Amino acid sequence: MSNDLEEDEEKVKALLSTNKKEIDNLILNFLPQTHRAPEISKLYEMMRDYPSRGGKGLRGTLCILWCEMFGGRMDTALITAASLELFQNWILIHDDIEDGSDMRRGAPALHKKHGVEISINVGDALHGKMWELLIKNGDLIGPETAIKILSEFSNMLNETTEGQQMELSWTVNNNWDIREEDYFLMVTKKSAWYTCISPARMGVILASAERSPVIPRDVVGWEKDVLDRLISIGLDLGISFQIIDDVLNLTADESKYGKEILGDIYEGKRTLMLIHLLEHADQTSRSKIVNFLSKKRDEKNDEGVQFVFEKMKEHGSIEYAREFARKHSERALKQFDKLCADYKIKESEARVTTRSLLKYMTTRDY
Amino acid sequence: MSNDLEEDEEKVKALLSTNKKEIDNLILNFLPQTHRAPEISKLYEMMRDYPSRGGKGLRGTLCILWCEMFGGRMDTALITAASLELFQNWILIHDDIEDGSDMRRGAPALHKKHGVEISINVGDALHGKMWELLIKNGDLIGPETAIKILSEFSNMLNETTEGQQMELSWTVNNNWDIREEDYFLMVTKKSAWYTCISPARMGVILASAERSPVIPRDVVGWEKDVLDRLISIGLDLGISFQIIDDVLNLTADESKYGKEILGDIYEGKRTLMLIHLLEHADQTSRSKIVNFLSKKRDEKNDEGVQFVFEKMKEHGSIEYAREFARKHSERALKQFDKLCADYKIKESEARVTTRSLLKYMTTRDY
Repeated sequence: MSNDLEEDEEKVKALLSTNKKEIDNLILNFLPQTHRAPEISKLYEMMRDYPSRGGKGLRGTLCILWCEMFGGRMDTALITAASLELFQNWILIHDDIEDGSDMRRGAPALHKKHGVEISINVGDALHGKMWELLIKNGDLIGPETAIKILSEFSNMLNETTEGQQMELSWTVNNNWDIREEDYFLMVTKKSAWYTCISPARMGVILASAERSPVIPRDVVGWEKDVLDRLISIGLDLGISFQIIDDVLNLTADESKYGKEILGDIYEGKRTLMLIHLLEHADQTSRSKIVNFLSKKRDEKNDEGVQFVFEKMKEHGSIEYAREFARKHSERALKQFDKLCADYKIKESEARVTTRSLLKYMTTRDY
Repeated sequence: MSNDLEEDEEKVKALLSTNKKEIDNLILNFLPQTHRAPEISKLYEMMRDYPSRGGKGLRGTLCILWCEMFGGRMDTALITAASLELFQNWILIHDDIEDGSDMRRGAPALHKKHGVEISINVGDALHGKMWELLIKNGDLIGPETAIKILSEFSNMLNETTEGQQMELSWTVNNNWDIREEDYFLMVTKKSAWYTCISPARMGVILASAERSPVIPRDVVGWEKDVLDRLISIGLDLGISFQIIDDVLNLTADESKYGKEILGDIYEGKRTLMLIHLLEHADQTSRSKIVNFLSKKRDEKNDEGVQFVFEKMKEHGSIEYAREFARKHSERALKQFDKLCADYKIKESEARVTTRSLLKYMTTRDY
């Protein structure tokens, strides 16, 4: 890694950490704390669990940066950014149940602590709080812009649940004949929208409602064009982000990572590496791998997991995925540069930092 | 039952059925049907399952009637009414998992057909569609009123998840020392808000935004006063409604009821009858009942269920609950009449029908 890139990365990490603190403050002040009924106080405590566990604050920061880059103020985007983080938190509670994940951010998943029944309801309660915060946003940004942001959230949720359904149905139906194009549709829906596309679009919508000084007044129809282009940029970036996330599940430093290394193989997750492996392994290995992955989680032993991992390395599946992610990340950055050039967006700090963050999302090591 | 009351009831049932059809049409046209990815088409099919199963359309009709009674048009309330029914549908998907219910509206519960994992996500997807519909509502009623209605929904969801948490925590912690006041707080939150209070308030908000011709222009501050009084009316009515619902679980005609008769005893549900019984049974019976109810559902036999049921009859618990419901229903209707008198609301068809529906909700036999 070059010194410049390292310096960029340090800056990005510092910014993420600063923003995360501000977002967390907002969320933890907003969420209720106690109720005269002890059962409800307990609910509040569980709702505060995932939001208190940390996380990178990527999605909220992306929204703030895109808003600033287009001339909006950070304050305008803060509630929306916090709502994005709430989205991440409630949906992880449900995802962890659906995917059978035991750990989240270095601690047991919520349903491992409180059971599935209670945790479904905690997720719903936190989900409700997300909408409540977005509705209150109307006081800050006016009802019309609030409705626009609400609409983006609703679309984001549609995409995410559709992506989750695709992935879940592969697991439930024990389907291993996944084509790359199925995988890309799933990842676009399950991950690219809420991680990249929607946060960026929301930032630009908020800046535009503030009558962004970055875009000259005589430029007509820019908002729609930019929002459209953000789908394309966010798609490349989001796929790349998810692939790197899955690669890190195999190769990251466990102390930094917070989840179980190789956990995806235990869970039988369909990743680009696995799809590549299943396409390239000989018939005997393929059968052995599919048989092993089809077992229930607690019937899988470490040797089997290691076998799958070794086969991935043997067939260059991890390198293939890394290269794929690199190409898509590069394509996203090219589109980003063209967008900036086309709209003559000056090299502000926000523009430089946004670009660094986009780059970081696909080069990070945890 | 007097002839007048029977006639009223027939009218109410006819109205519910007409409104339900219109609401169902709106919902089933709104929900997506097919997608090029077969997994997502399957998701859409599952999302349409509960909304296609029928149900009474009580909450939607209540919203429409309150809107009309205050001078608003049915069309203004239709999207909100449909969203109330969507609320009922998505939350039942999750409730059925959380409460371990096997049947819903005469057919297997969704998670019995597709598994818990998939069904949690179907519930979330349908939940998202509810907000999407409410956001689109802005095109019909304007962004400011849309935000007000969204805010009512958010509050309704907070109450409902808090009520659900209370009830779930009693089950999970095997807690049988429930006081009546705990029970009433739970029922208020879990049932009264979304069944009675919120639909009525939304109807009035919509009528008010249409500049209701029912209330003279020189009456100031009426909306706030009416909305406050609807909390009190809906609370009495909602508690009464839920008690009758629980009584029907013991005594209804199974062919009309759609759920399993005595299912609440199998599920160990804390009802007013059960709380009354546990307070009045002698120590030996109480221990026997608590021991039996603490068993897992599939370890409970019919004899034990019948024993609990007989003890309820012996101690007059069912009569006690019925009388309690009757008193609260009467108090709700008295407040309703006073509200109409105070605001000089004329004896319109909407007013008469609203009163009949409120009465029907606590006198129905299924």
